[in-house]
Amino acid sequence: MGWRGKIHEIIYEADTPLGKGFDIMLFVLIIISVILVMLESVGHIDKRFHDQLLIMEWIITIFFSVEYIARIISIRKPLKYIFSFYGIIDFISTIPLYVSLFVTGTQVLLAVRVLRLLRVFRILKLVQFIGEASQLGRAIRASRAKIAVFIYFVLIMSVIMGSVMYMVEGADAGFTSIPRSVYWAIVTLTTVGYGDIAPQTPLGQLIATIIMIMGYGVIAVPTGIVTTELAKDKHGKADVHVNTQACHTCSAEGHRDDAIHCYNCGSNL
Amino acid sequence: MGWRGKIHEIIYEADTPLGKGFDIMLFVLIIISVILVMLESVGHIDKRFHDQLLIMEWIITIFFSVEYIARIISIRKPLKYIFSFYGIIDFISTIPLYVSLFVTGTQVLLAVRVLRLLRVFRILKLVQFIGEASQLGRAIRASRAKIAVFIYFVLIMSVIMGSVMYMVEGADAGFTSIPRSVYWAIVTLTTVGYGDIAPQTPLGQLIATIIMIMGYGVIAVPTGIVTTELAKDKHGKADVHVNTQACHTCSAEGHRDDAIHCYNCGSNL
Amino acid sequence: MGWRGKIHEIIYEADTPLGKGFDIMLFVLIIISVILVMLESVGHIDKRFHDQLLIMEWIITIFFSVEYIARIISIRKPLKYIFSFYGIIDFISTIPLYVSLFVTGTQVLLAVRVLRLLRVFRILKLVQFIGEASQLGRAIRASRAKIAVFIYFVLIMSVIMGSVMYMVEGADAGFTSIPRSVYWAIVTLTTVGYGDIAPQTPLGQLIATIIMIMGYGVIAVPTGIVTTELAKDKHGKADVHVNTQACHTCSAEGHRDDAIHCYNCGSNL
Amino acid sequence: MGWRGKIHEIIYEADTPLGKGFDIMLFVLIIISVILVMLESVGHIDKRFHDQLLIMEWIITIFFSVEYIARIISIRKPLKYIFSFYGIIDFISTIPLYVSLFVTGTQVLLAVRVLRLLRVFRILKLVQFIGEASQLGRAIRASRAKIAVFIYFVLIMSVIMGSVMYMVEGADAGFTSIPRSVYWAIVTLTTVGYGDIAPQTPLGQLIATIIMIMGYGVIAVPTGIVTTELAKDKHGKADVHVNTQACHTCSAEGHRDDAIHCYNCGSNL
Repeated sequence: MGWRGKIHEIIYEADTPLGKGFDIMLFVLIIISVILVMLESVGHIDKRFHDQLLIMEWIITIFFSVEYIARIISIRKPLKYIFSFYGIIDFISTIPLYVSLFVTGTQVLLAVRVLRLLRVFRILKLVQFIGEASQLGRAIRASRAKIAVFIYFVLIMSVIMGSVMYMVEGADAGFTSIPRSVYWAIVTLTTVGYGDIAPQTPLGQLIATIIMIMGYGVIAVPTGIVTTELAKDKHGKADVHVNTQACHTCSAEGHRDDAIHCYNCGSNL
Repeated sequence: MGWRGKIHEIIYEADTPLGKGFDIMLFVLIIISVILVMLESVGHIDKRFHDQLLIMEWIITIFFSVEYIARIISIRKPLKYIFSFYGIIDFISTIPLYVSLFVTGTQVLLAVRVLRLLRVFRILKLVQFIGEASQLGRAIRASRAKIAVFIYFVLIMSVIMGSVMYMVEGADAGFTSIPRSVYWAIVTLTTVGYGDIAPQTPLGQLIATIIMIMGYGVIAVPTGIVTTELAKDKHGKADVHVNTQACHTCSAEGHRDDAIHCYNCGSNL
Repeated sequence: MGWRGKIHEIIYEADTPLGKGFDIMLFVLIIISVILVMLESVGHIDKRFHDQLLIMEWIITIFFSVEYIARIISIRKPLKYIFSFYGIIDFISTIPLYVSLFVTGTQVLLAVRVLRLLRVFRILKLVQFIGEASQLGRAIRASRAKIAVFIYFVLIMSVIMGSVMYMVEGADAGFTSIPRSVYWAIVTLTTVGYGDIAPQTPLGQLIATIIMIMGYGVIAVPTGIVTTELAKDKHGKADVHVNTQACHTCSAEGHRDDAIHCYNCGSNL
Repeated sequence: MGWRGKIHEIIYEADTPLGKGFDIMLFVLIIISVILVMLESVGHIDKRFHDQLLIMEWIITIFFSVEYIARIISIRKPLKYIFSFYGIIDFISTIPLYVSLFVTGTQVLLAVRVLRLLRVFRILKLVQFIGEASQLGRAIRASRAKIAVFIYFVLIMSVIMGSVMYMVEGADAGFTSIPRSVYWAIVTLTTVGYGDIAPQTPLGQLIATIIMIMGYGVIAVPTGIVTTELAKDKHGKADVHVNTQACHTCSAEGHRDDAIHCYNCGSNL
């Protein structure tokens, strides 16, 4: 194993103490760098500590740049990494500070660096911290199709309801265009309710009321879906009626708790 | 099969490649036409691209008109189609552009055309895309009665709570009439909370607080209903693994679907 | 059965056609009267149709007055009815119009008449329309203790969080007193979020953020409670493992599906 | 048992009538004192009843001071109490009034006294009132890891979404800094939706819409988690009807609690 292999082990794996240490350091640096980006965006803090923040940002950016290059060098198929999801995230969250050197007026684009935060998921994946998350993820993935149908339905209802409100309320109440009215419909259906646009006419308020009560039922659906999937998961795990005993003759599993004979070969259990 | 039959096959069915292709084209045209309607409603876009939008709208409207006539011609009982739900939707979402030729000031009514979006459900039905949706639909239909009782209860509580707030807060805080106060009560109970009307007096705020905490329990009910129905459904499916077959020897029931021998006496099933 | 008995049968029962008809008429009159009260509260409608509304109101009020007296006369223990929940509702929802004759400035109190709406529950009870509601009611009643603990917890957290925000934000952001801040905390925790009071300082916004994320978990609790109770209900009904067979010897019911002998007397099933 | 033991019994225990009475008195005094603190913070009430409120506050504070000292004296390890959670709460909720004697301008800090409310949990614990709460607590504790993963995910999404909105909307719409935009993202994702900050540009509204629909799925997760845990709990209880006893003759298990004979072989249990 050459020096490339060693770097690979440290950067990409989390089995060795060095690899683990590297991941923890990365995690801490990401959090610090995101806090820096956030503080920088606050006017009066940036005014007072501009230089200190910039220096710390540069230190972290140079570290991430080095890490990015090390990742490319130490892997066998660099292109695959570069164009992978995390490769792209790594690139676009490192580059803004360099760009800001040559191009002015890109101050706002520096916020792109918070995308670094997504890398945290990769680190956690390596450290295998998220056993619990996978159960949640599985439940959500299992109900993917149902959720898609649901969102599809919500969008269609929002477009129709938004258009109706556009006709009923008109520009005076803030329903200046259909897209804006659709935005309002989603704000209402999801029970967010900013209140920046709100119906003024009695008829508009009546329709809004109907949308809200529909929203009740609507919010119940994803909850029902996720709960059912999670419960299924749990149920599968805790199913007492089917025990873990294996048939001595045919090795069939999943017998009823009160089974006397194997359901597969009929021999005594 | 004459030409009518052929048209019928293309328009109404989705088994042949032509029929499928027609449905996909229809789907795409509907989405495009809805986007056109939405863009048209945005003042500055309409100002700049008015002519282009209008031309595209006319092309699509003529296509839908032809399709509408073809549907009437190719079906055996045209009246049944014309007065069916989708027949009416087809008509009222096609007609506005023609009306706008003769009557001025109907600009706003053009939004009616977004009802076209409802047709998407028919297309999906044909393509049998919504197997998952039917399960959701079944769950909601099964709890119809419970949901009706629930909405009924919510409405009564809203009317009473709204009237109380009308008396307590009065016109100064925006509670200018009972219907408006009822509107506020529903906005609060559904946790939408626009804030366009909000209690100002301590007593009003206390009552609002009670409504909100009630809203907690209230929002739990439809969720509970839908979840339970969905879970039942799921349960029903899981029970498929245990069939209703009885053992010929010992009449034991509840065998696994893949059981070859009775779990109780071991005889062949 | 004298005339009192006959009146009693019509008013209090719903078994005879007359009794049923009376209930339906009552139902319709209550709905009409509530709509009248609501319309009256709308300034410009009242201005235009004041006399018509008043006449209709008087007709309905006189009918309800007669009904109230008939209820007292026809029942054996009038005092028990008068001081019962529905007796009091009947009285205070009938009296306001009479009071408004003698006392001026009680216009607003006329809204009390919407309490009539509560009577609808009594009618539905008689007609036994709400079989479904009872299941919902049972689920809610069964989780009464848990919901009480939950509301208690929510209130304590709101008072503490409100006081903290009162100290952090102060009067400038609208947190002028602790009760008002507690009101804000409940508005936030229940995800209603009017926005009439909203934190302005970074620290206040941070604390508000914590309250909102807490609100997530908090809203999950009543939902979980109600869902579990409803599911239990359903489960009990659909429990396949226990069949409906009765023992021929001892008539015990609720045997396991795979029971060979009665669990009670041991005789063969 | 000396006088210290007697005081200990009264203050720390709830088995004797005196101990129970003391707890009830404490409960009442805490509620009164919290109401006093709340009333004091309301400007016009404080102006009118300042002296009366102050006198009552002093009476209660002196009582709590005596109780605090009694707690320290009567316990064997005073330091352990002083630095325990409730010891600290007792101290910092008693001290503000004394501090306000010597230091001016601490009026606002008097709100710290509402922390007294937390003591109510201790009292309830002693009286063993919260059997139900423990079930809720267990459900929440059991899903701790899942909830942590969930909150973690919500926070990361909020930071990223907030930064995106900061870039898209900018200071004009109120997105003046990333922390403020993150605050907005959480307000939206939790469906609170104050409306103090709301997107103005079409692109910003589109992104907001995506966040809201995500919020749908997101709100479903904690509900699903808690419901599943509660259901598991319930299930465990319902299974009590089937006990763990095994038949002495045939070893069949899963008998009903009230079973006298084995359901499988009919022998006595």
